[in-house]
Amino acid sequence: MSHTVEILSVGTELLLGNIANTDAQMLSQGLSELGLNVYYHTVVGDNPQRVKQAVAIAKDRADIIITTGGLGPTCDDLTKNVLAESFGKQLIFHPECARQIENYFSRIGRTMTENNLQQAMLPEGCTILDNDWGTAPGCAFFADGVHVIMLPGPPSECRPMFQYRAKPYLQSLSEGVIASHTLKLFGIGESTMEAQLREQMNAMHNPTLAPYAKEGECELRVTAKAPTDQEAQALLRPTVEQIKALFGSKVYGVDVPSLEYVVLEGLKTKGMTIGVAESCTGGLMAKRLTDIPGASQAFKGGVVSYTNQIKAAVLGVPKEMLEQYGPVSAQVAQAMAQGARRVLNCDVALSSTGLAGPAGDDRGNEVGTMFVAIATQESTYVRALHLGARPVRERLRIQTASHAFDLARRYLAGLPYSD
Amino acid sequence: MSHTVEILSVGTELLLGNIANTDAQMLSQGLSELGLNVYYHTVVGDNPQRVKQAVAIAKDRADIIITTGGLGPTCDDLTKNVLAESFGKQLIFHPECARQIENYFSRIGRTMTENNLQQAMLPEGCTILDNDWGTAPGCAFFADGVHVIMLPGPPSECRPMFQYRAKPYLQSLSEGVIASHTLKLFGIGESTMEAQLREQMNAMHNPTLAPYAKEGECELRVTAKAPTDQEAQALLRPTVEQIKALFGSKVYGVDVPSLEYVVLEGLKTKGMTIGVAESCTGGLMAKRLTDIPGASQAFKGGVVSYTNQIKAAVLGVPKEMLEQYGPVSAQVAQAMAQGARRVLNCDVALSSTGLAGPAGDDRGNEVGTMFVAIATQESTYVRALHLGARPVRERLRIQTASHAFDLARRYLAGLPYSD
Repeated sequence: MSHTVEILSVGTELLLGNIANTDAQMLSQGLSELGLNVYYHTVVGDNPQRVKQAVAIAKDRADIIITTGGLGPTCDDLTKNVLAESFGKQLIFHPECARQIENYFSRIGRTMTENNLQQAMLPEGCTILDNDWGTAPGCAFFADGVHVIMLPGPPSECRPMFQYRAKPYLQSLSEGVIASHTLKLFGIGESTMEAQLREQMNAMHNPTLAPYAKEGECELRVTAKAPTDQEAQALLRPTVEQIKALFGSKVYGVDVPSLEYVVLEGLKTKGMTIGVAESCTGGLMAKRLTDIPGASQAFKGGVVSYTNQIKAAVLGVPKEMLEQYGPVSAQVAQAMAQGARRVLNCDVALSSTGLAGPAGDDRGNEVGTMFVAIATQESTYVRALHLGARPVRERLRIQTASHAFDLARRYLAGLPYSD
Repeated sequence: MSHTVEILSVGTELLLGNIANTDAQMLSQGLSELGLNVYYHTVVGDNPQRVKQAVAIAKDRADIIITTGGLGPTCDDLTKNVLAESFGKQLIFHPECARQIENYFSRIGRTMTENNLQQAMLPEGCTILDNDWGTAPGCAFFADGVHVIMLPGPPSECRPMFQYRAKPYLQSLSEGVIASHTLKLFGIGESTMEAQLREQMNAMHNPTLAPYAKEGECELRVTAKAPTDQEAQALLRPTVEQIKALFGSKVYGVDVPSLEYVVLEGLKTKGMTIGVAESCTGGLMAKRLTDIPGASQAFKGGVVSYTNQIKAAVLGVPKEMLEQYGPVSAQVAQAMAQGARRVLNCDVALSSTGLAGPAGDDRGNEVGTMFVAIATQESTYVRALHLGARPVRERLRIQTASHAFDLARRYLAGLPYSD
């Protein structure tokens, strides 16, 4: 039997437009990968009557309802109360759940207020989904022919709660196995990639191919459905190889989380270290590397030099060079990388300098002009970027940092810096 | 009469999670500003039967339906066809619309294909909403007691079409205005805040009070409805003042985007500069400051010192201190801030050192142990944090950086560092 899913998001902040419904997007992606068909998203405010009506509609047209938001003390556990009522269930006190909440507060060193214990009231006979990322637990139950899963609203809780709690529960509902691999590409536009794949994509049914564009990068997800994982993998393998051959060194990894992850893994394998000198990216390169647990095994440190004075005093960029070429130049990018390699005492150093906006400089450089460089034992290489002023500041910075990481992963893999 | 709005978004790409429903967010914001109550968002795929059912539900519970997406040739004008049918209207050819579409193509220098003329077929008696930002025109009509407005899906078209086409149409329907202010708090948990406000919140009707938790911070939105903006503001003022008095220095701003924004504005007002020395936050503090356009007016730079060697060599932290107290200590946090102030030549320096995971250190410090410090001309101050190991690494780092910014904004506002 094929399942029909409705995502029911509860939160007045969504209806006021304070936030976008990124939970629904994240869940939709995850559910599609499980082979579950999402047919509806509904958003409703913190109003018991309207939530109740929305649940009645969802019950009628879906056999899996996933709710987000409306858990926790600030909304009187609205979602939990309404869903329990709609499915004729009592809320009962779960002591093990109360202990979890108490533990959470003692770990973060805060005093638990009485209203937090309310969260240990959950529908009778439900499966508790422990929330290790916040206080409100989720839960799941099956009633009236419908599977109900309730997840907290804050994205930093909803995402891991889906990944580690709801997914295992849902996996048992889809028949057969869905397996997928994600190829990550850097240095190619989404439309160029799609144009090269269009005919193939349209002709394919199992596996299927889905392209995504993300923050200046591209992803290709190859998904196959088969009775066993082994059979699904056998279906996937030739397509993965074919795409790798088609896009060559633009493919930086399969099933890897990010460019910076590939860089750190490459460094660790070779026993090498890295450091960064940042101007326009302003700490983003260091931040992205240290987002990864265990980064300290390869990452030594960074210098954010937002002024010429720091470029000269801390990184040793010659003052004459800064005057002659200006801080946004290939020369300065190279000198920054070389300086960082020396000062931070690392094997590989990356640098960035450029104009992320709001304004260009007085040397005629426009917003979007960026230089990234890499300094290694063997040589220094610089890549000039003209990203244009159209992407917002944030995206310009992300793309610039990614270009620097692209130089590092190419160096570590023995690939040419450009192709 | 007060209006009830439903936003009906048509697009399988939303249900697959390829994109977030940012159209609905943008529309919700704009509609709230007009004093129109958005009660529902519904997302449905490119399927005539399901769109038809969703329209039937919307007709039943809303008196303004705004659709996004499903216009234009690639989806066979799905939305237009279904909506016309649902409201018993014929589609008729609008020659003036056809001319507009032809003009658009000649402006962008493309040849118009025949299927584009299909877009000039619109419900009889509708108001045409010319699309100057794409090819598919929108339209509006009133039937069966319901106002229907159809807008194109691509955000770059939907936004201006709402702003310049739908808004003038809707303005005549809304009575009164809605105004709101958002108070931002740091250093208080959502449930503690909510416990202090619960009675008041339940007793209030106009203005209303809504709490939000965001990345370790809290927000309180106060919203009032009145015939004019002036009257709405008069309703808001006493509540805003009351909350400020209640939470004192924990309120770091009203209608401000972030802690770091308040810090930068405070620095600029005083003509002062800032620099950072980061260990556990690994570049995040510098990144958050430089996310803000124009940060260079006050931000000079940073040092990410992920090793003892860099703490000593670049920031001048005494080696004996590092050995005696270890890198995760109040002493080292203070020395880092003082070193950063000297090396980066800035008025205010912030520092962070701590354990963001995955593991504790060999001195018995657990994950979540953090120290942030501030060094100024007058003194150095350190705050010790025990955030616990339960928040994910990313949140530990965000909260730690926020605590450092909290020290800076308190210093700049002449407030005590703790209360």
